[in-house]
Amino acid sequence: MENLLSAPQPPRVFPVNPRGGEVLGRTTYTSQDNLPEPAELAIIAVAPVAIPGVIEDCARHGVKAAIITTSGFAEGGKEGRLLQDGMVATARRGGLRLMGPNTQGTIDLDAGLPLLSIPFLPRFRRPGLVSFVVQSALFPWEFFLNHAHIGISKMIDLGNMCDVDHADCVDYLAEDSSTRVIVLHIEGVSYGRRLMEACRRATRRKPIIALKAGRTAAGMRAVASHTGSLAGRDEIYETAFHQAEVFRAYDMDDMCDYILALGCLPPVKGRRVGILTTTGAGGAVAADACHNLGLEVPSLAPSTIERIREALPGLVSIHNPVDVWQMLDMPRLLPGYAAALRALGDDPGLDALMLVTHVIPDSPFDTTDVLREYCAAGVPKPTSVWALGSPERLQGLSLLSAQGLPYFPTIARAVRALGVSFAYQQRG
Amino acid sequence: MENLLSAPQPPRVFPVNPRGGEVLGRTTYTSQDNLPEPAELAIIAVAPVAIPGVIEDCARHGVKAAIITTSGFAEGGKEGRLLQDGMVATARRGGLRLMGPNTQGTIDLDAGLPLLSIPFLPRFRRPGLVSFVVQSALFPWEFFLNHAHIGISKMIDLGNMCDVDHADCVDYLAEDSSTRVIVLHIEGVSYGRRLMEACRRATRRKPIIALKAGRTAAGMRAVASHTGSLAGRDEIYETAFHQAEVFRAYDMDDMCDYILALGCLPPVKGRRVGILTTTGAGGAVAADACHNLGLEVPSLAPSTIERIREALPGLVSIHNPVDVWQMLDMPRLLPGYAAALRALGDDPGLDALMLVTHVIPDSPFDTTDVLREYCAAGVPKPTSVWALGSPERLQGLSLLSAQGLPYFPTIARAVRALGVSFAYQQRG
Repeated sequence: MENLLSAPQPPRVFPVNPRGGEVLGRTTYTSQDNLPEPAELAIIAVAPVAIPGVIEDCARHGVKAAIITTSGFAEGGKEGRLLQDGMVATARRGGLRLMGPNTQGTIDLDAGLPLLSIPFLPRFRRPGLVSFVVQSALFPWEFFLNHAHIGISKMIDLGNMCDVDHADCVDYLAEDSSTRVIVLHIEGVSYGRRLMEACRRATRRKPIIALKAGRTAAGMRAVASHTGSLAGRDEIYETAFHQAEVFRAYDMDDMCDYILALGCLPPVKGRRVGILTTTGAGGAVAADACHNLGLEVPSLAPSTIERIREALPGLVSIHNPVDVWQMLDMPRLLPGYAAALRALGDDPGLDALMLVTHVIPDSPFDTTDVLREYCAAGVPKPTSVWALGSPERLQGLSLLSAQGLPYFPTIARAVRALGVSFAYQQRG
Repeated sequence: MENLLSAPQPPRVFPVNPRGGEVLGRTTYTSQDNLPEPAELAIIAVAPVAIPGVIEDCARHGVKAAIITTSGFAEGGKEGRLLQDGMVATARRGGLRLMGPNTQGTIDLDAGLPLLSIPFLPRFRRPGLVSFVVQSALFPWEFFLNHAHIGISKMIDLGNMCDVDHADCVDYLAEDSSTRVIVLHIEGVSYGRRLMEACRRATRRKPIIALKAGRTAAGMRAVASHTGSLAGRDEIYETAFHQAEVFRAYDMDDMCDYILALGCLPPVKGRRVGILTTTGAGGAVAADACHNLGLEVPSLAPSTIERIREALPGLVSIHNPVDVWQMLDMPRLLPGYAAALRALGDDPGLDALMLVTHVIPDSPFDTTDVLREYCAAGVPKPTSVWALGSPERLQGLSLLSAQGLPYFPTIARAVRALGVSFAYQQRG
């Protein structure tokens, strides 16, 4: 309730409690019969056994949907599962759709609606480009905490997923114009074929990233006690994701990297990568990573080489990777670095750029300003960045991610982002 | 010179420049003939063509070793390679060992000696447990910047590696009592068999982590222009590393994770992992990761379950992973969490623990204090940690890494650390 009342345009909220009393200074209604107008959505946070009665009540008052935050259902064992099944049957009879139980709720930042059962800090309330459909809010929180500047559009925690499921949400988000990337966290699936058909339709329009938990025997036992889900055989998911052209993430870092690759980076339309590096060793690591991912590190156009030579006359030989380490202790060469970057941006033989650089404060080893200007002028081709730098400085650099110049925590992951974007462009 | 003069116990430093003049307020000697006492080590930073003459001079004055920071040798092409070969021949005749050329130098924090050609900030001068032997200081800098609290012991940048090579340094570091973990960054190898024999001897005493660049055609071209190295076929390295029981890192995150796993985590002596989690979804990801790495998530001893039940009476069912999400919004349960952690620490059926937790400031979702106390009391068994938290709070948590409770940026990587430590214990 606190989250809703502090929303920019708070919805009308009617607290209902048969015992009456006040909540956040508002008098509660002792029954839905007394509401000044019918509710559109019910958020139910009563004990499991009381829920079917509340749902019947909702149905009688024309409520169309309910979010059930209470836990203690299918995840708790056989008895809980029976209770959950009974609740669903009641809702079906009454024409209600249910979300949950055992959910933190949903967030719709475009509508300014944090329908969330835990505190939602104001700094996370920036509408963004990615929407999450999860069985635990852990994954959107991980993204919020590390990439608050990118922001999310919707977050839907399905919890035990007794009714509304991933497929429903994928269909909805495919049509949602503010969602650029969809992330799924899946512990179990109600109707596998339906989900995969929804994904196939959606990936024609926007990319989907899926993190499937309960991939192994130990993980399956764990998801059963978390959301009461049957995890299913992993090979089937693997094949289905592949066929639906869904990107599979295995861990948080995969998930965050893929969001940046598919949401922040402009589309990579070919394999040819130009590497500009302020460290020779880093250039070699980047070149290795390109090769491993089927990307190319081609020769540069003669005109590009000429422009770089003019910009940085001290360079002995210029090829791809373009290694400009000599400029590191000479801040007066930063304009030359910027010019070299522009030359690579203009090379028609390159589809994307990978920058390996330094952002060390209080030293001449800092290309942050050049990168900020590169970004402000409109990135000429998809460019991913890794930099050696202090954590504070890197946090500054990562703000450019939201402006089309994504920063990644390692060289190989920055290169992988280019590969992921290219793979999405190649979809059938 | 500035680095050396600001060392805790500065060595005697004699600047030599035929043109005379002052450097950092000290008069330079115009020739080695005029030094008040013979030098033990020469740091040479003159133009490539002048170096053979300086080396002859060093030899005549009984100098035993030189670090050549100048670049423009084998990495620049054929002419540079001839120059480099000539320089080595001169040094051999004079009985000098050479390090470099094209190196940032070396650091020995136990001796307090930063023999480094770039500024070395005081905050990095904490002696630690890991030593680096590299062909670019990029990798130790990445570690410094992200894990300053763990610290390093030695850093040796071999640069073009014209004489002193990885094998020499591995032999030295194997005997060095302050080095607990050795990290190699390899672009090329002079004598492969010698290096692998050195590694085999060393890994009996302490773990080695190797990052090999120039693994692919594109990477090989890049290393040739970085240090003039011939990268060699990657399959050969792969097999050799495997035989020598060297841990191979493919990226910076691997490198940092392995250092923490092998340097900070107590040895993991068996496969049985107990998972304590404040999020069910995170517990499932951890269990999956264990299974994938050949680790087990066994049932808990009845006495452990009993102790956890007493500590946290609200838990419905207790199994491994132990999911205590209910405590999240109840800070009064933090002592119960601590007691559950101790119970798992005492379970004789577990070889290691993995903690999935929350450290969100200004919320009851913060187990930092409990973990700090767990650490202060002496970690009862190897324990790795992942937490959902704000970057600032996580930085606080990661300080515990140096005290035997390493924190990792993702759940799967925290589990991998347990697997890496166990693999090292299993070495032949």
